[in-house]
Amino acid sequence: MEHTDSDTTSLTLLGLGDMGTALARAWLAAGHPTTVWNRTPARAAPLAAAGAEVAETAADAVAANDLVVVCLLDDASVRAALADADLAGKDLVDLTTGTPAEARARAAWAEERGARFLDGGIMAVPPMIGAEGSGGYVFYSGSRPLFDEHRAALAVPAGTVYVGEDPGFAALHDVALLSAMTGMFAGVAHAFALVRDEDVAPKDFAPMLAGWLAAMAGYVNGVAEQLDSGDYTRGVTSNLAMMVRGNATLLRTAEEQQVSPELLTPFMDLMRRRLDDGHPDEGTTGVVDLLAR
Amino acid sequence: MEHTDSDTTSLTLLGLGDMGTALARAWLAAGHPTTVWNRTPARAAPLAAAGAEVAETAADAVAANDLVVVCLLDDASVRAALADADLAGKDLVDLTTGTPAEARARAAWAEERGARFLDGGIMAVPPMIGAEGSGGYVFYSGSRPLFDEHRAALAVPAGTVYVGEDPGFAALHDVALLSAMTGMFAGVAHAFALVRDEDVAPKDFAPMLAGWLAAMAGYVNGVAEQLDSGDYTRGVTSNLAMMVRGNATLLRTAEEQQVSPELLTPFMDLMRRRLDDGHPDEGTTGVVDLLAR
Repeated sequence: MEHTDSDTTSLTLLGLGDMGTALARAWLAAGHPTTVWNRTPARAAPLAAAGAEVAETAADAVAANDLVVVCLLDDASVRAALADADLAGKDLVDLTTGTPAEARARAAWAEERGARFLDGGIMAVPPMIGAEGSGGYVFYSGSRPLFDEHRAALAVPAGTVYVGEDPGFAALHDVALLSAMTGMFAGVAHAFALVRDEDVAPKDFAPMLAGWLAAMAGYVNGVAEQLDSGDYTRGVTSNLAMMVRGNATLLRTAEEQQVSPELLTPFMDLMRRRLDDGHPDEGTTGVVDLLAR
Repeated sequence: MEHTDSDTTSLTLLGLGDMGTALARAWLAAGHPTTVWNRTPARAAPLAAAGAEVAETAADAVAANDLVVVCLLDDASVRAALADADLAGKDLVDLTTGTPAEARARAAWAEERGARFLDGGIMAVPPMIGAEGSGGYVFYSGSRPLFDEHRAALAVPAGTVYVGEDPGFAALHDVALLSAMTGMFAGVAHAFALVRDEDVAPKDFAPMLAGWLAAMAGYVNGVAEQLDSGDYTRGVTSNLAMMVRGNATLLRTAEEQQVSPELLTPFMDLMRRRLDDGHPDEGTTGVVDLLAR
């Protein structure tokens, strides 16, 4: 939380879902005059009670402040909400979830209308917003001058990480991290399925599993070094030949425990394919190549 | 490393692959008289130079000490190596990779031959063995008296975690953690595939990804609480309905980046199935149920 009392930029926020509401509360709590708008007005009432100005239309809300933050359901909602707004001279910060291509197109669209544009990808859930030390943060990409000028205000709800001028990069980083997490959660589901019919208490098992995954997250740095160098055998301690042998034990165990292996087999199949392509001494980095379409 | 100079139990080690060799070196360095055997004798020469006794046959090696540690390629190799050995009165510790059912069968087999039996699942790679503070450890299950009696010697190469009298539990825990890691590595491969053709340096991206995964590993504890309580909506901050909507953005991004979604879609399909079964307010724990065969 880097803001100071002397920096309480006024701002507009469009979209009062759970995330938008959490953002508005954080800015209001930090003393930023905040104008809000939501398609269904009832969501604005509790924020009005907390000191927010409530605009009748999105265009009115945009007219109220130079800094305009948008946090809507999807990119189509952004286009619809801003259709009648005058964006000339505005600083538009789009925290709506979307793809890199959507962010790039929205950036071009905003710039044509005379606005500076910054896209954001929120790496937090609403309870983490405005909560000191929550670890939540927002990836930002696009206009660096906009980011620098409003950095203090942007840092109120969560940490800020600027990842580049390309307006698609915030979404790219956001989606990449969420995709990796999706894989981890799939593995976690498989792990619990393996132990659930045994006399293993989930509460005893969980800290071991969580500790193991946190420790193994460092594997990521090894993959990066291999991709950087182009040498996928670099620093490998457990090679593909050994891992593919180990996969057989994982699959036999799944069968013993009557657990479907469907969450693991696609990756195992690609490991096997890379091994069969003649790379026994690599780790799993070659799979990255096999995913390219 | 909990051993003391006063506890330098002599022991036998069968199997001198990379892991067995690392184990032998750790015990020798800690002053434990160690007798080794390997099917192909050449692997034993460097250990002899380091002070190991080298046995001609596995049976001779077993005869040399009461504590016998086995670290071979697979369970069939264990059966073959011990076929002619007299196991009466021995303490057999099997660190060979295998399934829970294999460990249980090997335990019954060893006990019939008059040995106490402890199975172990090594959560470390060879360079971590005997390295202070490496974080590596071994899951043990089976004979508690054996474990308690030899705990100091067993703690020399890596930390020890005893997980139960059921001799299958070490392998079960080992495989469950490795399975979850496999899922995480699949997600990591997908994440790198997404960014690799963009102007994103793997070295800049990696710490963000590693930090995110380490932070999200705590999700495991929430899954455990839900499984314990039977209430899969407990403590949910990002529910299944939202996650399934988010999955669409992940898939559209994969398509934009020309990355095959094959590593993510099986889990997404199960999330969708659980949602369609009428559980929008849960997290992903319901997927554990869907994996049961």
